[in-house]
Amino acid sequence: MTAKPVTAVEASSSLPVTLADIEAAAMAIAGKIERTPLRYSRTLSEITGAQVWIKFENLQFTASYKERGALNKLLSLSNAEKAAGVVAMSAGNHAQGVAFHASRLGIPSTIVMPKGTPFVKIEHTRNFGAKVIIHGEALAEADAHARQLEKEQGLTFVHPFDDAKVIAGQGTVGLEIMEDLADFDAIVIPVGGGGLSAGIATAIKARRPAVQVYGVEPAMYPSLSAELRGEEPKVGGATIAEGIAVKKVGRLTAEILRKLMEQVIVVGEDALERAVNLFVTVEKTVAEGAGAAGLAALLEEPHLFRNRKVVLVLTGGNIDTRLLASVLTRSLVREKRITSVRIIGNDQPGLLAKVSTVIGENGGNIIEVFHNRMALDVPAKGAEFDITIETRDARHTQEIIDALEAAGFPPRTN
Amino acid sequence: MTAKPVTAVEASSSLPVTLADIEAAAMAIAGKIERTPLRYSRTLSEITGAQVWIKFENLQFTASYKERGALNKLLSLSNAEKAAGVVAMSAGNHAQGVAFHASRLGIPSTIVMPKGTPFVKIEHTRNFGAKVIIHGEALAEADAHARQLEKEQGLTFVHPFDDAKVIAGQGTVGLEIMEDLADFDAIVIPVGGGGLSAGIATAIKARRPAVQVYGVEPAMYPSLSAELRGEEPKVGGATIAEGIAVKKVGRLTAEILRKLMEQVIVVGEDALERAVNLFVTVEKTVAEGAGAAGLAALLEEPHLFRNRKVVLVLTGGNIDTRLLASVLTRSLVREKRITSVRIIGNDQPGLLAKVSTVIGENGGNIIEVFHNRMALDVPAKGAEFDITIETRDARHTQEIIDALEAAGFPPRTN
Repeated sequence: MTAKPVTAVEASSSLPVTLADIEAAAMAIAGKIERTPLRYSRTLSEITGAQVWIKFENLQFTASYKERGALNKLLSLSNAEKAAGVVAMSAGNHAQGVAFHASRLGIPSTIVMPKGTPFVKIEHTRNFGAKVIIHGEALAEADAHARQLEKEQGLTFVHPFDDAKVIAGQGTVGLEIMEDLADFDAIVIPVGGGGLSAGIATAIKARRPAVQVYGVEPAMYPSLSAELRGEEPKVGGATIAEGIAVKKVGRLTAEILRKLMEQVIVVGEDALERAVNLFVTVEKTVAEGAGAAGLAALLEEPHLFRNRKVVLVLTGGNIDTRLLASVLTRSLVREKRITSVRIIGNDQPGLLAKVSTVIGENGGNIIEVFHNRMALDVPAKGAEFDITIETRDARHTQEIIDALEAAGFPPRTN
Repeated sequence: MTAKPVTAVEASSSLPVTLADIEAAAMAIAGKIERTPLRYSRTLSEITGAQVWIKFENLQFTASYKERGALNKLLSLSNAEKAAGVVAMSAGNHAQGVAFHASRLGIPSTIVMPKGTPFVKIEHTRNFGAKVIIHGEALAEADAHARQLEKEQGLTFVHPFDDAKVIAGQGTVGLEIMEDLADFDAIVIPVGGGGLSAGIATAIKARRPAVQVYGVEPAMYPSLSAELRGEEPKVGGATIAEGIAVKKVGRLTAEILRKLMEQVIVVGEDALERAVNLFVTVEKTVAEGAGAAGLAALLEEPHLFRNRKVVLVLTGGNIDTRLLASVLTRSLVREKRITSVRIIGNDQPGLLAKVSTVIGENGGNIIEVFHNRMALDVPAKGAEFDITIETRDARHTQEIIDALEAAGFPPRTN
């Protein structure tokens, strides 16, 4: 899809959220959320061929932009609603955003999370003062339970995205970007339910209609792509971008994005992992999978952005430590800085010593050895080693493989 | 040691670097280095019991403060010296700082690095335009080679710390902190050769003599501690804070620090790892081992800083990806969120299935199984499994261990 040129008035007047709503949200939440920095990245610009600015929403207190919408919603409640309390369903950042600001405002909060929610997110949400209920195998069941509590206990349900107050709160990200950067051509925003992108698109298209607003979805959850084509989304799978792994976008958000979004870019897991790794190694910042989706889009579709001024919204930094460690290590394998080679030889004393010597003399660093005596592809008197080597780069790895061959130990790589 | 109260004049007039030198350096390098942010951390304040501000020098382009001193030195050279070029010895951040700014200024640079320098640092230094020479097993040999090139080729040697221009450049960190924070009680600075701490101490003690300046050294390299006691330092070992693993502090830096530093805090590897992990998980920022030393000091000696306003200088973010992944994973083990249990039983079909079921039903996540049939502490017909489990926290781990015992599979933990 390609958006027609729209004027500021057209963009904001006929849609569920207006620029004025977002400006009001900015006034309401000012001083209670972080005014996050926008920074130019020389190195990511070189890597992607675009001119790249990053909006660091991972520097919010709960490490995601979700606080903005949650707080704007909470502030809009009547005193009676505040006293009765709120309920939300979320396996992640929305939970923390609601819990933190509700506690700060003295509003009781109940968060329903599905089973399998990462431990660290449950802990944080409890620590922020919410009552956490673990219920249901999947988000749908947890959501139904939250809706039940809404009715039974007279709580206000705080939707993670399909609510005009929430969308307006998230849109304040767009206002800040326009304050900090006088001129840019495009903005790339991760899309789950569409709250953030709908809010930002509303703000930006109202003030700067020429700026192109791109959304990014993980290939396993192309919900907005399907919605815009009028199809039922086919979703599922364990994406590292679990923060935007949403089965269906909102009704309000779809209405806004259908009109204001230039294009949805679908990114694979490989690009998401590379993007998380680049944020750590280049920018020294921690992005969760969903938070890195904007950079992943530039890696997958660089032709769309070449030489253009592009803003990426780094939406959040809540990535499980073990997942982050795994992504970092897998990146070394991808870059062939960690390689596993299999050596088959006679099972005689000294074989490993000889092989290790060749690797060491060529500057490789052995980080793991697995000695397999049971493999059937080896003669009974043979030996099979899987040796994992750390090297400078892919060329260095090839040098070591060549040296092993020259020394009479031709390795198999996998 | 405890510093006597000194007046601004005393502090700056009798020492090799003055406040005026640092102010001049700030003017010289302005606009060519990043004006890095200083941010308050609510969560690190809660964890440490102090009021913690962080100066993010890992956000410099080459991800460390070293650029400041290197650039101030380069700018001080005569035209003839600039044309002849510079040489430096460094396995790390100083190399990148010199290489980047020398290339930017059109000054030829040669960097000597010892064998074993992490690959990623060699690559970056080359990419910044320096001629990199790998020479010597240790820093001392690389240093001697650089000194030889200085003489043979008429190059100017850029010392990583023991140079008045370099110290003045690093001191600009202190000026920025005082600009951003009107009032604080103490500052904690990682110490290798002492260039950064000497520069910052000079700036801060001149303007705010009541602020206490603390240094931090890794337990394996307590060079300044030894120097101040008049002893020969006993150093050595593979610390993760390799950026401050220096055998001997400088002559100029020792002279300054002897007078201006309140106390040197020595931190162990465990505290350094915890600090790197906290920066990632709490602040969503990447600190190298040396860069996290200030936070490590607060973790080890919290009584020194309780309820006081403390600035930590996060000096750099250049940590090898594999080391970072390892630190993150080890932190999970330390927090008992990853635990390895050993189950010994009869080697019958179904044993692993039964054990796995108990673990799964109790909410544990199995991430590795090692089946050892050769252990002599097991009967010949027995089986031994090492099962690595991810859990919510230490209490959850104990629940799973109790459940395994109740089910007839008493585990050994290690």
